[in-house]
Formats: sequence, C-alpha cells, structure tokens
Amino acid sequence: MTEQTRPAGAHDDHARCKALGRVLDRIGDKWAIMVVGALSNGPVRFNALLRLIEGVSHRMLTLTLRGLEQDGLVKRTVYPTVPPKVEYELTRVGRSLIEPLSVLSSWAETNLPTIEAARTASKEEETEASE
Amino acid sequence: MTEQTRPAGAHDDHARCKALGRVLDRIGDKWAIMVVGALSNGPVRFNALLRLIEGVSHRMLTLTLRGLEQDGLVKRTVYPTVPPKVEYELTRVGRSLIEPLSVLSSWAETNLPTIEAARTASKEEETEASE
Repeated sequence: MTEQTRPAGAHDDHARCKALGRVLDRIGDKWAIMVVGALSNGPVRFNALLRLIEGVSHRMLTLTLRGLEQDGLVKRTVYPTVPPKVEYELTRVGRSLIEPLSVLSSWAETNLPTIEAARTASKEEETEASE
Repeated sequence: MTEQTRPAGAHDDHARCKALGRVLDRIGDKWAIMVVGALSNGPVRFNALLRLIEGVSHRMLTLTLRGLEQDGLVKRTVYPTVPPKVEYELTRVGRSLIEPLSVLSSWAETNLPTIEAARTASKEEETEASE
C-alpha cells in the first residue's frame, strides 16, 4: 500500500510514529532501555547497576543515568551517610515505561533465535555470492 | 532494591533484558523502528518510504532496510517492470513487531510533553547553576 492509498487512521499512525521518533532520539538507545529494566524492581545503587547491566562502561552508565534524569524518568537520591550512598530509581513517568518495555522484551526473547538464524543465513549467502 | 535482595523472577527479568539488549543492538535504532512503523499498513516503495519517514537520508534508509532484510524482518520484492518496481514489506516476524511497537509509541505520544518539559527545566537549571 503506497502513501496515496493509505487507509483512514494513517495520519494518527504518522503522528504517533513522529512522537516515537522524538522519544527514541533520547531513550531509544540500548543502554537507556537496559537501565529502565534494571530499575524496574526498585531503587538500585550505581555499582549494582554496573554489575547488573552487562557490557556497560562506567562512563556510559553515568551518561545514560544523567540523560534519564534530565528527561524526568529517573530520580537520583544522595543519602548523607559516610561514604554517601547514591541511589537511582524510576519516577512515576519512568515506571509507566516498564509495561511497554516488557511487551517489547517478551517479543525480543521469543524472536531472537529467528532473527539470529536469519542474520547467519544472510551472512552465508553474502559469502557464497562473493566467492 | 539491590541485586542481593531481588525477588524471585528477577532472573527471568535479567534473561529477558539480555535478549532485549541483543535485539536492540540491531533494531533498536530510531530508523529501524520508524521503517517498521511505516510498513505496518502493507508494502511500500523506496521513494514513498523516503517521504514517509521524516528526516531519513537516502543512504540511511538503504542501510536500515538492508539490516532489517538481513534480520528477516523485511522482505524486498523486485517486479520485472520497466523501470523495475521495488517494494518492501514486513515478513511474518516483522509483522509480529507491530503490536509491541504500537504499545511503545502510544506511550511515547502520551509522555512526550512531560519528557520535553523535564528536559527544558533541567537545561534551565544548568544555565542558572553556571551563572
């Protein structure tokens, strides 16, 4: 179906798609989504997040948390202990993202084997074609 | 809640989170998600996609479509007309991604104003702090 023959409702789809695009510019990176996932059970300290999120660097985690904080999705609390305890937790808006993300991650878990098989097959085809 | 005190089920969350991370490495970029959205009503030709997806460049659209094709989410069909007509459409697996993405984009549409307000407030705070 081309643009010209799109059914009614396509305009709403388009507006939604644009909103999604603007949100994904910020929270659409892998690390932001992993952080929201890691905080979904409650507040977590920085070092615990570093352990929970496989492959994230100290610097990338810092930047990701700062971005999420600026977007109002994560709240940072410093407790006046010695040494100071710093905890991160989801705000109300941040918590509302758990459900959509859990739908997406169930999809990912179900379809990852199919996607990886397709990727491997496609790589083999390329290799054969270049031989 | 720290890693040590996580409730039962946290392990499943973690596995799901990892699968999501691996899928997001590929489909997690903004353009891939926008393409899936643009194809959700049926097959679309390259130039129509270019018009539908605001801000995408010719090259970026080509790369994104190639990636989605390799992952088995998009199918490319060339019709033997003069000039050849090339259409892109979602595969069965690609179509199964529409629902999770539409949940996420509804969330985006609802929460974009809140997020943008938080972002602006945070920028102003930074400016004040540096004055």
